[in-house]
Amino acid sequence: MDVEKRQRVVIEKVTPEVDGGRFPVKRVEGEEVVVEADIFADGHDLLCCRLLYRRAEEQSWSEAPMVPLVNDRWRGQFRVTGIGRYLYAVTGWVDHFATWQRDLRKRAAAGQDLSVELLIGAALVDEAARSAAQGADGMQLAERVARLSCPSLTPEERLGEALDAALTALMASCQERPFPTVSSPPLAVTVDRERARFSTWYEMFPRSCTADAERHGTFRDCEGHLPDIAAMGFDVLYFPPIHPIGVHYRKGKNNSTAALSGDVGSPWAIGGAEGGHQAIHPHLGTLADFRRLADKARGYGMEIALDLAYQCSPDHPWVQEHPEWFRHRPDGSIQYAENPPKKYQDIYPLHFENQAWQELWEELKRVVLFWIGQGIRIFRVDNPHTKPFRFWEWLITEIRRDHPEVLFLAEAFTRPRVMHHLAKVGFTQSYTYFTWRNTKAELTEYFLELTQSQGREYLRPNLWPNTPDILTEYLQIGGRPAFMARLVLAATLGANYGIYGPAFELCENLPLRPGSEEYLDSEKYQIRCRNLDAPHSLRPLIASVNRIRRENRALQRDWNLRFHAIDNEQLICYSKQTEDLDEIILVVVNLDPHHRHSGWLELPLTEFGLDEGSPYQLHDLLSEARFLWSGPRNFVELDPQVIPAHIFRIRRKVRTERDFDYYL
Amino acid sequence: MDVEKRQRVVIEKVTPEVDGGRFPVKRVEGEEVVVEADIFADGHDLLCCRLLYRRAEEQSWSEAPMVPLVNDRWRGQFRVTGIGRYLYAVTGWVDHFATWQRDLRKRAAAGQDLSVELLIGAALVDEAARSAAQGADGMQLAERVARLSCPSLTPEERLGEALDAALTALMASCQERPFPTVSSPPLAVTVDRERARFSTWYEMFPRSCTADAERHGTFRDCEGHLPDIAAMGFDVLYFPPIHPIGVHYRKGKNNSTAALSGDVGSPWAIGGAEGGHQAIHPHLGTLADFRRLADKARGYGMEIALDLAYQCSPDHPWVQEHPEWFRHRPDGSIQYAENPPKKYQDIYPLHFENQAWQELWEELKRVVLFWIGQGIRIFRVDNPHTKPFRFWEWLITEIRRDHPEVLFLAEAFTRPRVMHHLAKVGFTQSYTYFTWRNTKAELTEYFLELTQSQGREYLRPNLWPNTPDILTEYLQIGGRPAFMARLVLAATLGANYGIYGPAFELCENLPLRPGSEEYLDSEKYQIRCRNLDAPHSLRPLIASVNRIRRENRALQRDWNLRFHAIDNEQLICYSKQTEDLDEIILVVVNLDPHHRHSGWLELPLTEFGLDEGSPYQLHDLLSEARFLWSGPRNFVELDPQVIPAHIFRIRRKVRTERDFDYYL
Repeated sequence: MDVEKRQRVVIEKVTPEVDGGRFPVKRVEGEEVVVEADIFADGHDLLCCRLLYRRAEEQSWSEAPMVPLVNDRWRGQFRVTGIGRYLYAVTGWVDHFATWQRDLRKRAAAGQDLSVELLIGAALVDEAARSAAQGADGMQLAERVARLSCPSLTPEERLGEALDAALTALMASCQERPFPTVSSPPLAVTVDRERARFSTWYEMFPRSCTADAERHGTFRDCEGHLPDIAAMGFDVLYFPPIHPIGVHYRKGKNNSTAALSGDVGSPWAIGGAEGGHQAIHPHLGTLADFRRLADKARGYGMEIALDLAYQCSPDHPWVQEHPEWFRHRPDGSIQYAENPPKKYQDIYPLHFENQAWQELWEELKRVVLFWIGQGIRIFRVDNPHTKPFRFWEWLITEIRRDHPEVLFLAEAFTRPRVMHHLAKVGFTQSYTYFTWRNTKAELTEYFLELTQSQGREYLRPNLWPNTPDILTEYLQIGGRPAFMARLVLAATLGANYGIYGPAFELCENLPLRPGSEEYLDSEKYQIRCRNLDAPHSLRPLIASVNRIRRENRALQRDWNLRFHAIDNEQLICYSKQTEDLDEIILVVVNLDPHHRHSGWLELPLTEFGLDEGSPYQLHDLLSEARFLWSGPRNFVELDPQVIPAHIFRIRRKVRTERDFDYYL
Repeated sequence: MDVEKRQRVVIEKVTPEVDGGRFPVKRVEGEEVVVEADIFADGHDLLCCRLLYRRAEEQSWSEAPMVPLVNDRWRGQFRVTGIGRYLYAVTGWVDHFATWQRDLRKRAAAGQDLSVELLIGAALVDEAARSAAQGADGMQLAERVARLSCPSLTPEERLGEALDAALTALMASCQERPFPTVSSPPLAVTVDRERARFSTWYEMFPRSCTADAERHGTFRDCEGHLPDIAAMGFDVLYFPPIHPIGVHYRKGKNNSTAALSGDVGSPWAIGGAEGGHQAIHPHLGTLADFRRLADKARGYGMEIALDLAYQCSPDHPWVQEHPEWFRHRPDGSIQYAENPPKKYQDIYPLHFENQAWQELWEELKRVVLFWIGQGIRIFRVDNPHTKPFRFWEWLITEIRRDHPEVLFLAEAFTRPRVMHHLAKVGFTQSYTYFTWRNTKAELTEYFLELTQSQGREYLRPNLWPNTPDILTEYLQIGGRPAFMARLVLAATLGANYGIYGPAFELCENLPLRPGSEEYLDSEKYQIRCRNLDAPHSLRPLIASVNRIRRENRALQRDWNLRFHAIDNEQLICYSKQTEDLDEIILVVVNLDPHHRHSGWLELPLTEFGLDEGSPYQLHDLLSEARFLWSGPRNFVELDPQVIPAHIFRIRRKVRTERDFDYYL
């Protein structure tokens, strides 16, 4: 307490920081954490400030320098080199020696007598020498004291000694820190593997891997699809739940309440006589088949992501084994899912407010650990916003303590605060409102929020143009051009994106009924077999877009997004660049799926490192066409019937030694 | 810990809040504290949220309701009725009964069978009845249980029972709160007396209360000036230090380093053979004279504010008694004040880093307590930014624990973060950059920051057009019209303002030399006797402006400031209104002291409660002229040679019962 009273330095507004340090910020391995703070003291003394950082499991801090910006704002940075958890803080103290040097310079410049001042400096060095004690530094400092006080040196020589760079460096390392202030509490960084920041998802129902809708597809069948999915450039293959499906109140085709014989039911009605969340639907195959499929997928550079849907069918083993985990009604029945007056009788929600909640939590954790045991490292979590935040915080923390490589994607399409809080408590990635953001104004506003506001420190967007639950009006009405536009938007606005695959690549756009976002003949309730080689398939475009993403680092991150003016409301223009400007990707999309549009766009040439006077090349990575532009204003035109987007790489002109120009 | 895990409700972003609760917000007695927070839970259950508040010394919370706004934001408020310290927090929990009622309504509307649902509700009421135990509420609830379950009632009757308002109210008060979340830490409010928010300061050198520059003015002389100062409408009379002045290195007239015999020195060079910070300059009179003056001032509705300048002349008793409180140089001398290469040899700064710092702090506290003992309750603190923040936090907290009515004004003209931090650690009011903000753009930007940004929760501006140290270029060049404009701006932009009086009212505008902000023949170094009745004195205008401030509550606060468009860069237009719109004050100032300017201004009539179609009256409270305006756009013209400002009161037309119109 008394030590605190003697601190002269104030540290405020440390960034990044989430809710006063209650939650960590997120990074992936290899990234820099740029830390800033307001740091100041009373009076006019100079300060010394350092950024402190360490892995959470380490005991002692490493230090990085901090430099003043303007208005008492300081900045430093450190690199997170491995996955797991890092901590950081900021410290600062009054630097008496640097202050003395600064004032000495001013006094010397004014021609003042410095003899007493030099003795004051010698005393500061002497003090540092004593605290450095027997070490070599102490010896060196002691010599410096002697020279500063030496009467045989001229004033000029002694001034030179006082301001000597080596002495400055020695003092910076040896000087005691008088009553340093340390920001509190230490702030945390969750460091993920790179796939947390850059991933390309393909969602599919394995049971539809069949040429005959009467025959349930299997994991073995899925193996045959892996080469094509990999060739399209996906690296995460996400399966809806693969567990046994309940028979009581099973839903029929098109969500009818009465299933007919042979109806396969919804994979989200988890659990039957064959088992629950740790079992595999017998028609899909065995656990060995699943592991074999996952291994083969890895061979193609793809990871399988499983669906974590914490809910039960009436036939789930837990209903008998743990009736206390469900809500019981006065008539003896178990409460099924409802959104009054709607009823979902094929689903029993878990009752998190039950008295045996701790056993429930542990069992749910065992589910995750079981699948980790099968080699799974990515989970897409179904409706996390209907289970308590505290549960997720506990679960994700528990899992990541031993398995920091595990990623969780939150499928919460709900209110903004709720989505943000799920990201804060630990979800690695989050579904977003991108699905329904269609106009230039909507996209611009939303992506500025996602990529430039404080929420980006913890919420990583994963963009989905469609899901098995959501066939948007834009896709329904816009048809194939709309699918192309939404693909390019998702894949270039976000480093993480995914499609509900076969339905997307085949541009399936028929709703259950007008005004509905449900698919007609939805795969949620039936097996769908399709001609994946249909000529209108977007497979080639998807493969191109994903190749462009892999080949251009600028598209593998979110924060570098910038929008540019273009004088047509139906055209949107934005860029992403690497920090060194080696790669500048410029995207233009025609948002109107029905009409050709053209416009003049305006580029910030200087910020792109381009010369106002020289031409530069626009290389369309989709069409391989190349255009020569010069100046900031240029013309584009896009026909949605052909392709509604350009993904340009801007290439600067480079002159070789042999006087031969080319575009880099 | 396990209890925390069961909390379903999340509370975030509680406002107002300063640095995560590290510092209190400020209010004056009688004001409302409007508290908002983001509050939400998993799922779709309804919440109940309450605002908790109490005086810091009370043990138990009072509660106020909170209501949802949009996007999971909730709001509540409480009133601080006395000075001192209040605490507040926010709590929320899942309201199972309200959720059940909401769903019951939906089920009923859909014509569903409610019999089981009514039993569920009865169980909720039964649970509340048991927890309410023997009390009358418990009895009432038990009866309700019986009625909800009664088989002889029709379904409609039982539904009516379930949704009955009295039952709802009973349940709201009796229902147990399941695992409520409480925001943490509790946040604090410093509650000041009203003068903290609304005060009118007059600074003067008592030694200049003399008709003969050779004769030192006395407190007795000051008494004669009180009626005039009071008539001008001031309520705080602030004196520079009134202590003995050192003789060593005393400054002469116009800050010359060699004082001549008879030079009186700077009052800020505190301490001499006659004493230090608890002594009175013998030429001013005795402590009894001082108390008598303070009493007489109180009789005129004025408080005397003293200057707390924690520094010493070489002759201060502390220099001998506590040499350890000063910095000693290797040549045996004591370090005087410096801003290298400038030297201030008449001042020894206190060395707060000395080993005996605790004794120093206690002595400085004794100084404040001594003057409190003499009846002083307002201190203007000289250069607080050159003493440690932790010292001020301790001192102000210590003083206000027993004397919460004491106010401290921070005279820190320094960097923004430093000024804000002084306000955070406890200063009641703060000098501002207003002194140098002259153009419309500068004033608008700065006052939006002061009155609409988060800093207003703790920093209360006190606006000074001049001080003994600052004669701005604008006043030097603009002369009397500039003084009039700056007076009106200070008095109407800010509820707290002050002038360095005689020099201001007499429009003294001669600098020490061109380019300097120092006054020629500054009162800091010499006695100035003036003709206070000079015809060019602004005394009548000052009296008018201060009367208008007293008579119009809208001018007694800062947060209600709004700027309005006016199509001339030299004219600035803004308003302040009471919440009930009973008073709307509209100010227009011509910022150009040399030329007449006119322009069209645009008023938000609807927000003023004015009818677009009806005329309204503009009553100029300065000139007593009245104008009839209608519509939002109207014309004004101001001649700085006459008066560069309007202070209008907008009067609505009111029709009396006898069909006689007048303007309210």
